[in-house]
Amino acid sequence: MLRISTRTNTVPYSPIRKLMPFANAAKAEGVNVYHLNIGQPDIKTPDVVLDYLKNTFDKDIIRYSPSGGEEPLVNAIKNYYSRRKMDVDSSDILVTNGGSEAIIFAILAIAEPDEEFIVPEPVYTNYVGFAAMCGVKLIPVTTYAEKGFHLPKRERIEAKINLKTRGIIICNPNNPTGAVYSHDEMEMIVDIAYRNKLFVISDEVYGDFIFDEKKYTHLFDFYKNMPEVKNNLIVIDSVSKKYSSCGARIGAVITKNKSLMDLMIRFAQARLCVPMIEQLAMAEAFDNCDEYLIHSKEEYQVRRDTVWELLSHRDDIVVQKPEGAFYCMIRLPIRDAEVFAKWLLTDFRKDGETVMIAPAKGFYISPGMGHNEIRLAYVLNSEKLKKSVTLLFEAIDKYKKIEQILISGSKTIS
Amino acid sequence: MLRISTRTNTVPYSPIRKLMPFANAAKAEGVNVYHLNIGQPDIKTPDVVLDYLKNTFDKDIIRYSPSGGEEPLVNAIKNYYSRRKMDVDSSDILVTNGGSEAIIFAILAIAEPDEEFIVPEPVYTNYVGFAAMCGVKLIPVTTYAEKGFHLPKRERIEAKINLKTRGIIICNPNNPTGAVYSHDEMEMIVDIAYRNKLFVISDEVYGDFIFDEKKYTHLFDFYKNMPEVKNNLIVIDSVSKKYSSCGARIGAVITKNKSLMDLMIRFAQARLCVPMIEQLAMAEAFDNCDEYLIHSKEEYQVRRDTVWELLSHRDDIVVQKPEGAFYCMIRLPIRDAEVFAKWLLTDFRKDGETVMIAPAKGFYISPGMGHNEIRLAYVLNSEKLKKSVTLLFEAIDKYKKIEQILISGSKTIS
Repeated sequence: MLRISTRTNTVPYSPIRKLMPFANAAKAEGVNVYHLNIGQPDIKTPDVVLDYLKNTFDKDIIRYSPSGGEEPLVNAIKNYYSRRKMDVDSSDILVTNGGSEAIIFAILAIAEPDEEFIVPEPVYTNYVGFAAMCGVKLIPVTTYAEKGFHLPKRERIEAKINLKTRGIIICNPNNPTGAVYSHDEMEMIVDIAYRNKLFVISDEVYGDFIFDEKKYTHLFDFYKNMPEVKNNLIVIDSVSKKYSSCGARIGAVITKNKSLMDLMIRFAQARLCVPMIEQLAMAEAFDNCDEYLIHSKEEYQVRRDTVWELLSHRDDIVVQKPEGAFYCMIRLPIRDAEVFAKWLLTDFRKDGETVMIAPAKGFYISPGMGHNEIRLAYVLNSEKLKKSVTLLFEAIDKYKKIEQILISGSKTIS
Repeated sequence: MLRISTRTNTVPYSPIRKLMPFANAAKAEGVNVYHLNIGQPDIKTPDVVLDYLKNTFDKDIIRYSPSGGEEPLVNAIKNYYSRRKMDVDSSDILVTNGGSEAIIFAILAIAEPDEEFIVPEPVYTNYVGFAAMCGVKLIPVTTYAEKGFHLPKRERIEAKINLKTRGIIICNPNNPTGAVYSHDEMEMIVDIAYRNKLFVISDEVYGDFIFDEKKYTHLFDFYKNMPEVKNNLIVIDSVSKKYSSCGARIGAVITKNKSLMDLMIRFAQARLCVPMIEQLAMAEAFDNCDEYLIHSKEEYQVRRDTVWELLSHRDDIVVQKPEGAFYCMIRLPIRDAEVFAKWLLTDFRKDGETVMIAPAKGFYISPGMGHNEIRLAYVLNSEKLKKSVTLLFEAIDKYKKIEQILISGSKTIS
């Protein structure tokens, strides 16, 4: 037997993407599928980016970039942070293949195989994949819809710390819950990390999308008043959501920890570089799109309100009003959201349309959690959102009845 | 103490890139630096690719791609293999962030931490970085200039196999040596792998650059006659060198092993996708550039001849005529090629010019090897190559004298 890696037992299929074959089959039948499963915004990529690609780019060789990133992009990122009152040097920034590679580099730079990172759950499912690829363990601290998916008390987090713990990974604003951690919550995380010699990896790729004028605390707000903690802090950033450029694959890992950066640069040298053209195009975005970000935020807030207006009037679901990003977690009155999600694609049709959602089991690490939850990404315009959420509601009603028949049927049989 | 990963002791700085700060300093002084250190071709990227980028690309959102790759690219790769008489299905191909990610995925899909891959040395230095990142060991089988850097006898390779061995990684045509393995050598590797339940990872990114009409054996030539071996075979491909598009970061890992592909697709889902625009642009290259590849190969052969003409007449160096790719390894009549390489950038000037080379110690895994060797990439046009190799020769002459003075000086002192 030609055996393969035991990672085959630990690396999950993406719950966001694994039902795609069923969606494609539905589309092949001519069905219109509303995608609420994936955080792929329909907002136009900034004109300065498209203009760079279509009109400015004039090189006749697509050359290697510097491993750490093209200078114009690194400077543009630095200035973006500077405008947000954070003192980030060029040497603190490493450009990566999306936020994905940024997190992988951070994990590999910090931890040995079998070491641990604490992470609030529900968790962005891809972290589970990265951890399994890197051979480290994610130790969940469960958060609950009933408490707005905010962080639990200090003791519950500290109870997870042991000799193998190497860091805490947070996503703020949170994917998949939409929670935005308060200044006190962030301070607690930083303080726990500092006292226990842990790293904090803060994935802030949704940091420009904070609703209702809620105050947002960046991880890097702390090294100003607590310079002793600067070596513990790592920020993950990406153009994917900010600049509606998910397919550009430009991200960054940012830290003032020189040893960590030195090691990550060696990782970067091994993989040579990040796509050159997108780096130059995205430098334009970081330099020129603060207005664009405000408009995008306003548009997402409108969508959040649209979705919330519908969700909050339905009393057989549990859902929390999102404070940022563009996701919410919904507990459904059904048994198995994955079966439901598949059924939506294979069986449910209304006027030739259906809706695709991400079943949430894959967003939990603790066994048995999330089986009746879904993540909904409100990345369509309000009109489409209204249609698709209404469609989802009709599907829930229909599926509830089917499930009851199945359950009573199986009871009769047994 | 906030400790970081022990990878800091194992992941090397790239010998190809680590002297870049000295090169940049020289350039800042106005010095013209000939880059023989890095495989960055000066051949123009194909017009169909540039045309796609500048004229055809018309999307207004840079969206996520499918995790496994854009369909037009996957089909174009399949057809590229088909024209080379290899039966590769779409489902055998996973598009990656360059050949780099392809190798990382293959290693992670095969091996547990501390398991081993056998690799001929000198070895493409980035494999050392990938292995250290993934926590696996590379076990070298040394090859020698005197034997054309061809593979040793079967017994020497089999002697390296133990219970931890999971595969053999070859680069063919070879970076850094320019060797092209014969059909017999390839058959030996495949047979050793099959009998010992090992994988073969064959990095064939230079597969289109074979000189002197030498016959080239693809790894996939074997599953036709030895179907039992198909699950053991993995091919790495990339557009970087083929289509002079190093900065596009489009590669592929190709295998008929379904379990392995299934696991690698999960890795791919975790990191979401590969840059969308380059995928679509590179589909054009795979579909339309077989002529371009022939011209590129002819140009590299002219350059190989130019370099060889100069090198073969110098009798204080040891060098083997390259059979493919665009590198050669040169053993110099000096003690420490790394000091020499740095000295070239910091001290040596001739009419305001100098040359950058890659010291070869980092291309060896066995301690003590390669200290007086360099890798030379002949990626400049013949005129520049003549100038830069002549410059290199003058530098060697000068440095030999300096080294003799230093050595006799240190002898006097001691």
